[in-house]
Amino acid sequence: MTPGAYLDHAATTPMSAAALAAFVEEAGKAGNASSLHAAGRAARRVVEESREQLAAALGARPSEVIFTSGGTESDNLAIKGIFWGRRSEDTRRTRVLVSAVEHHAVLDPAFWLAGHAGAEIVLLPVDGEGRVDLDALRAELAAHAQETALVSVMLANNEVGTIQPVREVVRIAHQHGVPVHTDAVQAVGQVEVDFAGLGVDALTLTGHKVGGPVGVGALLARRDLPIEAVQHGGGQERGVRSGTLDVPAIRAFAVAAADAATTHTERAAHLAGLRDALVAGVRAAVPDAVLRGPDPATSSGLRLPGSAHFTFPDAEGDSLLYLLDSAGVQASTGSACQAGVPQPSHVLLAMGVPEHEARGALRFSLGVTSTPDDVAALVAALPTVVARAQAAGLVGGGRS
Amino acid sequence: MTPGAYLDHAATTPMSAAALAAFVEEAGKAGNASSLHAAGRAARRVVEESREQLAAALGARPSEVIFTSGGTESDNLAIKGIFWGRRSEDTRRTRVLVSAVEHHAVLDPAFWLAGHAGAEIVLLPVDGEGRVDLDALRAELAAHAQETALVSVMLANNEVGTIQPVREVVRIAHQHGVPVHTDAVQAVGQVEVDFAGLGVDALTLTGHKVGGPVGVGALLARRDLPIEAVQHGGGQERGVRSGTLDVPAIRAFAVAAADAATTHTERAAHLAGLRDALVAGVRAAVPDAVLRGPDPATSSGLRLPGSAHFTFPDAEGDSLLYLLDSAGVQASTGSACQAGVPQPSHVLLAMGVPEHEARGALRFSLGVTSTPDDVAALVAALPTVVARAQAAGLVGGGRS
Repeated sequence: MTPGAYLDHAATTPMSAAALAAFVEEAGKAGNASSLHAAGRAARRVVEESREQLAAALGARPSEVIFTSGGTESDNLAIKGIFWGRRSEDTRRTRVLVSAVEHHAVLDPAFWLAGHAGAEIVLLPVDGEGRVDLDALRAELAAHAQETALVSVMLANNEVGTIQPVREVVRIAHQHGVPVHTDAVQAVGQVEVDFAGLGVDALTLTGHKVGGPVGVGALLARRDLPIEAVQHGGGQERGVRSGTLDVPAIRAFAVAAADAATTHTERAAHLAGLRDALVAGVRAAVPDAVLRGPDPATSSGLRLPGSAHFTFPDAEGDSLLYLLDSAGVQASTGSACQAGVPQPSHVLLAMGVPEHEARGALRFSLGVTSTPDDVAALVAALPTVVARAQAAGLVGGGRS
Repeated sequence: MTPGAYLDHAATTPMSAAALAAFVEEAGKAGNASSLHAAGRAARRVVEESREQLAAALGARPSEVIFTSGGTESDNLAIKGIFWGRRSEDTRRTRVLVSAVEHHAVLDPAFWLAGHAGAEIVLLPVDGEGRVDLDALRAELAAHAQETALVSVMLANNEVGTIQPVREVVRIAHQHGVPVHTDAVQAVGQVEVDFAGLGVDALTLTGHKVGGPVGVGALLARRDLPIEAVQHGGGQERGVRSGTLDVPAIRAFAVAAADAATTHTERAAHLAGLRDALVAGVRAAVPDAVLRGPDPATSSGLRLPGSAHFTFPDAEGDSLLYLLDSAGVQASTGSACQAGVPQPSHVLLAMGVPEHEARGALRFSLGVTSTPDDVAALVAALPTVVARAQAAGLVGGGRS
């Protein structure tokens, strides 16, 4: 484990001991799961048992699981694959509706389609807490349902933790015959995720946010969803995703996901307890810190239990991050994938946070290994860190 | 290890102990390599040290290494990414030249571009041993250089083991200013692979053929090569390949590739010795078996040391495979990715092998863990297996 207080589990969380043991057990074996001999059939059995285990943990059928290399690939497959699949059924379907607060793994494939394949991207607005505007979705579909390829709205936001009304999104979209994808990367392992219950047509998840390995993920996709392959080759995963099946990682992923599903009530309670202490501690230590996203004290069911997001007035997020790091506390300004990008978060801007306030953002995210000591370390370090970052900002020392 | 004689290392070979130890050491740590705090920077250091190690093992610069999820993704990135990159420089560049014996991970992205992006695919013919026809390449480029986006010719064929004249391909293509990609998935670990020495613009390799993990690979690409991203999102790998960096797998991959590079002379001698015994044994056991690809007795430098490919008259490859498997010997009819596809190999057909002969194909491939006992088990089992498969074929029991 890393020394100090690791409060960045939303970026990645360490592999669980059970998942690592499963990985090691498979890694020493020969056998490509596509091979027909005994070693190949044994590898295939591990894959199919893992597929069943993962499906059961997520309320899906085994035949709905497409293994990928992770969340980014699953999102690319969903956005591009459904766009191409739906458009080849009807060439009028060129519109892609995504919430304005999606991860770049959804936004960037959508904008790539706009540049390369004639797609038209519609960004659905969100309210001040980051929740997608359902009236905007209704209006858009009332006007353009026949030209719409898909809707993609994440299950929970990776920066501010907002849980989206995905069931309502599905209800509205399905009235118009439009399929819905949801990026559930941050939700799986923190809240119950039920593919059939949500009613979505496709759902992204990844291994390394639930105690499984990096480099493996899945797209759950209904069998009647038109979806074209994005990665072409040997025809694995019923032709939708080619590439040698990663047997050790797939088994480790399924072990971690199953463990997360069976223990999510206790996990959520553990995380929410720490999170509530963290929020109270931050507010007491730095009274002018502003909590972003839904307030857990008033709407606990509508946000992830394991994270809290604040902006600190007159301080740069990067300064806060480095000063906290020097004090042994590891946090994030937002998405790890955007770390080092000197621009305010598109999520906060979409929520209506003014740019100068959005610059002072910090995300604290907890995991199964988090302890009250981690929270205490943050709360103890924070007043000095914020004061120093604010002083640096005043003398022009912050990044602009 | 799998019991019995595993003669399918070209499909996948087990992780080495050193690679697995490196994986396990990293897997328990927190830290996303894109994060800016101490844990993130430590993860980034592991990635960059692994990048240097991998580059040194392959005669490349660290900045030329793009980590991916494996060979299929690297091939997709090369074919589509270079196509889009070159065409956006000059819209006339729509032709993609590939050898007729490429893996489906090259062929299928090329044909997808033909169906979706206006590409024109030219299949370069091969001779009876599977070597690409350089005169055909010369003629094609003399007529259409300005309309050519790229050339892709594999370093060594995955089915029959033929090493391609990639240096000559590069010389011809570069005279016309056309970049060259080579799929070196089967070559790395068996022969020396020197990215700078070959002169290619892009090169595919993967972890699980060299004793590293499945689920990780790389595309080596010159910095001046126009290449567009295929997987979009957080902008990792200088924007060319988004997705969370798989730190444990990347380090394990680099360890395995470095080990393969430093020991390739001994590896090749070990493999070629076993392969020569295997070829002699098969010919003695089944005199009418036909060796496909270059004969190691006459042109040892022109084929991979670790594999041998035969066709057996009047027998179905699948029957041979299952009967051998029952006898404890695990082989392949060709590419694992095409296992179960009841069609003769496109590689053999391109080499001019008649369809009825191509149906009786078997590939035997060796790895670092292979022993003389594995070869002996094959040679002992083969006469009965072939006789039974031929008998099954005569009564119509074979797959058609």
